[in-house]
Amino acid sequence: MLLIVLELIGLAVFAASGALAAVRARLDVFGVVVLGLTTALGGGIIRDVLLGIHPPTSLRDWTYLVVPVAAALGVFGFHPQVARLRRAVLLADAVGLGLFTVSGTATALATGVPAYTACLIGMTAGIGGGAMRDLLLREIPLVLRREIYALASLAGAVVVVVGAKVGWPAAPVAVVSAAIVVAIRVLALWKQWNAPVARGLDR
Amino acid sequence: MLLIVLELIGLAVFAASGALAAVRARLDVFGVVVLGLTTALGGGIIRDVLLGIHPPTSLRDWTYLVVPVAAALGVFGFHPQVARLRRAVLLADAVGLGLFTVSGTATALATGVPAYTACLIGMTAGIGGGAMRDLLLREIPLVLRREIYALASLAGAVVVVVGAKVGWPAAPVAVVSAAIVVAIRVLALWKQWNAPVARGLDR
Amino acid sequence: MLLIVLELIGLAVFAASGALAAVRARLDVFGVVVLGLTTALGGGIIRDVLLGIHPPTSLRDWTYLVVPVAAALGVFGFHPQVARLRRAVLLADAVGLGLFTVSGTATALATGVPAYTACLIGMTAGIGGGAMRDLLLREIPLVLRREIYALASLAGAVVVVVGAKVGWPAAPVAVVSAAIVVAIRVLALWKQWNAPVARGLDR
Repeated sequence: MLLIVLELIGLAVFAASGALAAVRARLDVFGVVVLGLTTALGGGIIRDVLLGIHPPTSLRDWTYLVVPVAAALGVFGFHPQVARLRRAVLLADAVGLGLFTVSGTATALATGVPAYTACLIGMTAGIGGGAMRDLLLREIPLVLRREIYALASLAGAVVVVVGAKVGWPAAPVAVVSAAIVVAIRVLALWKQWNAPVARGLDR
Repeated sequence: MLLIVLELIGLAVFAASGALAAVRARLDVFGVVVLGLTTALGGGIIRDVLLGIHPPTSLRDWTYLVVPVAAALGVFGFHPQVARLRRAVLLADAVGLGLFTVSGTATALATGVPAYTACLIGMTAGIGGGAMRDLLLREIPLVLRREIYALASLAGAVVVVVGAKVGWPAAPVAVVSAAIVVAIRVLALWKQWNAPVARGLDR
Repeated sequence: MLLIVLELIGLAVFAASGALAAVRARLDVFGVVVLGLTTALGGGIIRDVLLGIHPPTSLRDWTYLVVPVAAALGVFGFHPQVARLRRAVLLADAVGLGLFTVSGTATALATGVPAYTACLIGMTAGIGGGAMRDLLLREIPLVLRREIYALASLAGAVVVVVGAKVGWPAAPVAVVSAAIVVAIRVLALWKQWNAPVARGLDR
């Protein structure tokens, strides 16, 4: 139940991040909706394909269509007037990353795959939608450019898996793990943590 | 039977659209063939992966290889000498969109998924190949830039599903649905229907 | 057994090609690792998804994570100081193409698909990782730009399939097929074999 609520919030914020990025790229209202939808559903569809869930959950239940479309249209109508669009994309992306990492890891565990596999699939579910958004807009995906992106997702996935092993109650674990991912991402963005670039580059 | 004919025509025109786009991008003959093949097979492979059809139909039957390769080579040899290449890409894309939306929706219905899911998978089958073509050439996909692209596909998918529910004969329904998609797309291109862009953009 | 060794070498060299490309694109250490990992695992994951192997092999066994990460970190720390990066990417890519074409074709044959399908899936496994690397860095994939890229992979896949039909011992066939792919690719690069571009281009 809580998992469904978290996933719906994740759908809305990822759709918002895709829609904001589409508005920035000056796409029209249809492009904004399609990109919002792709960002929102991309990670979950990749997760279901990897787990062998056919057809993917998000193509069976209309709430997975209505929530992202509504979020994208809301962004299109009421998007912040000025220069904060880029920051808004990054914040929505961080929240979506946290929520989908958690729901993806939990979904994978529920199908009986080992803890190790569940972490990797949870990370893929968290990272996938945003990577598709960036690819479709011809940007190098955040996960490649931003320090502490995949690591933030990994941290959340590990907490979910450890919680399940130890037997902690699932609901608070899910909320805490998602919060950890978001906190790490926001801290990394705020503090502008930088990772090293290779030495002696030839260009 | 008719479904197979429609799918073969779809393979040829989508391969032609990919090959024309590759010629425009000045790729050599191998690049033209590979891009034609990817455009032709992309949507159907995504459809089969989402439906759990392993291995995908198009990897089992050699006609799915021969038709697109022949179409791509034909384009490479006889492509229109002058500036009409871009228009030719868009027209071939519209016909492919219509045919693959219809065959994708019908294939999905045949596996027993609900009507709602069949529409979404049909749209994915129709849109997928062209999106892969544009991504590989580093262009923002048509489905994001063009008004009335996803909606045209949706209209065709809905007609197929309604026809199946009501019990209309499949063959004429398939032809009519594909024609509807093509007509909407061509009209949208011809009339240059434009959808609104968000107000007050900061850049 | 030999198949596993070949696949591990393939993981390392494909990860190295991805990491070198990431270093060239001035990504930080996290980006280098993520891109190395994506290049190394991409082809095999696509192969398993097409064959219906859930979850993909590379997400179940930690060696598939450790080897590429170690290779990527090694490249990051000790990458050649000077202008040979681009050549190193192409060479590592050629070796990876050969090894993954062979292991992909053999894996597909082992699941019982027909020879024709096994060739196509082997090619996809060989080409997939490099294509994902190029896409993520916003470059037109090698398979579209380079003459004799898909053909080299096809040659290797055909030798594996013929070897299996005729009943030759699998180990030498695997080594020879991979060597054929690498030899064709290196020769094509060295001799700068060029395929024709379409005549009379309008731009």
